[in-house]
Amino acid sequence: MILHESFGINEKGRLTIDGLDAVELADQFGTPSMFISEDKVRKMCRMYKSAFAEYFGGASSPIYAGKALCFKRLYEVMKEEEFLADCVSSGEIETARAAGYPMENIFFHGNNKTDEDLKRAVKYGVGHIVVDGVEELLALEDICAAEGRIQKILLRITPGIDPHTHKKIITGNVDSKFGSAISTGQAEAIVRLALTMKRLDLSGFHCHVGSQIFDIDPFRDAADIMLKFIFDMEKNTGFEAKILNLGGGFGVRYTEDDPKIDYRDNIRRLGEEIDKMCASLGVNKPSIMMEPGRSVVAAAGATLYTAGSVKEIPGFRNYVSIDGGMTDNPRYTLYQSQYTVLNATRTTDRADWECTVGGRCCESGDLIAEGIKIAKPKRGDIIAVLVTGAYNYSMASNYNRVPRPPVVMISKGKPYVAVRRETYDDIISLDE
Amino acid sequence: MILHESFGINEKGRLTIDGLDAVELADQFGTPSMFISEDKVRKMCRMYKSAFAEYFGGASSPIYAGKALCFKRLYEVMKEEEFLADCVSSGEIETARAAGYPMENIFFHGNNKTDEDLKRAVKYGVGHIVVDGVEELLALEDICAAEGRIQKILLRITPGIDPHTHKKIITGNVDSKFGSAISTGQAEAIVRLALTMKRLDLSGFHCHVGSQIFDIDPFRDAADIMLKFIFDMEKNTGFEAKILNLGGGFGVRYTEDDPKIDYRDNIRRLGEEIDKMCASLGVNKPSIMMEPGRSVVAAAGATLYTAGSVKEIPGFRNYVSIDGGMTDNPRYTLYQSQYTVLNATRTTDRADWECTVGGRCCESGDLIAEGIKIAKPKRGDIIAVLVTGAYNYSMASNYNRVPRPPVVMISKGKPYVAVRRETYDDIISLDE
Repeated sequence: MILHESFGINEKGRLTIDGLDAVELADQFGTPSMFISEDKVRKMCRMYKSAFAEYFGGASSPIYAGKALCFKRLYEVMKEEEFLADCVSSGEIETARAAGYPMENIFFHGNNKTDEDLKRAVKYGVGHIVVDGVEELLALEDICAAEGRIQKILLRITPGIDPHTHKKIITGNVDSKFGSAISTGQAEAIVRLALTMKRLDLSGFHCHVGSQIFDIDPFRDAADIMLKFIFDMEKNTGFEAKILNLGGGFGVRYTEDDPKIDYRDNIRRLGEEIDKMCASLGVNKPSIMMEPGRSVVAAAGATLYTAGSVKEIPGFRNYVSIDGGMTDNPRYTLYQSQYTVLNATRTTDRADWECTVGGRCCESGDLIAEGIKIAKPKRGDIIAVLVTGAYNYSMASNYNRVPRPPVVMISKGKPYVAVRRETYDDIISLDE
Repeated sequence: MILHESFGINEKGRLTIDGLDAVELADQFGTPSMFISEDKVRKMCRMYKSAFAEYFGGASSPIYAGKALCFKRLYEVMKEEEFLADCVSSGEIETARAAGYPMENIFFHGNNKTDEDLKRAVKYGVGHIVVDGVEELLALEDICAAEGRIQKILLRITPGIDPHTHKKIITGNVDSKFGSAISTGQAEAIVRLALTMKRLDLSGFHCHVGSQIFDIDPFRDAADIMLKFIFDMEKNTGFEAKILNLGGGFGVRYTEDDPKIDYRDNIRRLGEEIDKMCASLGVNKPSIMMEPGRSVVAAAGATLYTAGSVKEIPGFRNYVSIDGGMTDNPRYTLYQSQYTVLNATRTTDRADWECTVGGRCCESGDLIAEGIKIAKPKRGDIIAVLVTGAYNYSMASNYNRVPRPPVVMISKGKPYVAVRRETYDDIISLDE
């Protein structure tokens, strides 16, 4: 096992993904290609569902955050696993719908849903709309009146938590484009307003404290603030929240330097804390929801590239260039995110060649890793980047007119194309 | 005029793009939409061509760097303007080809061209291939032998210049994924090797010192180093370079805080310096080429969005959310690039509402600007971001399954769709 159970090494000294030889996979599907272990995704779904049932109880449920990775086949898997889905755009809703995913299982998020987005969601019968602010609340009431519908909603609340994570992925602070803040009184104001809406059925509250969180502290702090808010709202308005959605954020181990995380145990501990808080406040425990995205798919994924230029600059650095890069994985360029990179062709060779892994774009910042050590590659070797299931394909671009790679899923040892490789014709097809 | 000649204000107090009312454009084409003044692009092309002819002389020529903005119609414009093109991928070459752009006018760049890329370029008769390193040189020789072709090439050299610009867009340093460094002896070695290749016809050298450069110093320094290198190569190997390509990098004024730049005068001064250097070295002046991309298209472009959520958080910040963001303009998220943002609906109102402009993605980092002042928007107002012609559409993604906006070109006051708006069906079409 390398880092996660999906990754290993075979007798030829090559990387394996779900037991399949990475060099053979690269040969069969071409490079760059992204591989996703369907088995691992399903395993994570089942772990989350059973842990939520056991430790949060009642109608508590995890919700898959599709922004991490989103395509039709994945919604089919989520449908089969009877897993709820968090959609953040009409595009995600349309993708889910094309997969036959039940609309009532969707929670529709976003800081700036357009009227068109809201109309679509109401018409399609999306289960819950997570309302971000007053303007959206008023717009949604009008739309529901026009459509003759009653819509279940949550309200997005900003509890004001700093989860000590990367600035760009902090969302629970008061100073945020998302939600209504408790500390400014805006949260209570929107609750009062929501309760006057005839077409909107308030189910509870949503908050989100951040991403890539390895302990329960930020979630416990958020639950603490939110349960007090629920208590206050019940006292002040008589509204009893049925759902408390604590958002996403459980961390994923990208490199050996990241801590290991026992998700089930985190949920167990968080459940205990929540039970204590509810008892102490005298609040009926709402259904607890969370929105894992990254932790469901990241460790199921690996991207395979072919090494092209191998360059040694004496006194400076070594570079290996791959046939992908920021176009399929912009996270190093965006956040200097660290990944585990291997020479998949020579995984048992000593990893002693320190290098920078450069992408193929005509841009110096197009790098995937700097200062890592791998077995020195030859042109044509397969370079693997592990744990790329989340926020890689979903953030991919056609910068430099580079087509996006396919997504190959592996189910019980059988690989199949879930998203086909983009062609030059696809790219040009938008040009008039 | 606001910032650049394409932008003004009309009698209704609204922004104009090439004289057209931005609110009416938004109404006609929807939002978000990107607008490109074809007239401005052509004007920049003509300015560059005439300045190169006048101040660099001989066969000197500018080359359009398509990575800044690349679609079929733009190559038609470049063809009509008889402008050379710098392509950095097979995708860009295929786009040019689909537009009927002459292949012999292309310079093909890239730090990691695959064998497939090289074969395509040779088969299509691409004018020059800018060879990045030894492996590519050897691969290209083999391919040309197999195809029975002679291929003109430049060699990419890293002169080792720090242009004091943003780290991610510095490419002339020795420590770079691009090119062969002079100071390590690798540049001379690849020249010697290239001269032994039977199928490769070395025309000269390419270097690139960076982007967003407002003075001539980095170019002069690069020319100084490169002309000395040319002198040394002639002395050491007998090879006389016919082309010196100094790459791209002239700056663009994005905000009032950026300096104004007189491109023609910069070229004039650089031409004088190059003449002096050649005279002093006793080197025959090669044809001087440069690769403007950003400066050809950036100031021709503006993106129009609709304001959605308008949020005031007392004691913290104000936020206006727009119906686009990092999906169509990732440059703030990537580089904290500054833009000029206006309320296009109320451009003559006092711009006194300090705010952060948030995109629509479910990601806190999806911002377009922070701490700017605009006329306070209402939901439905049109928000304009100016000078978005470069590295916006070309870097756009479908993150959050958000479709890419259309590119509307404006020619002599007439707008037309050059790239159509992406649909949800387009996005889902890759899913099996």
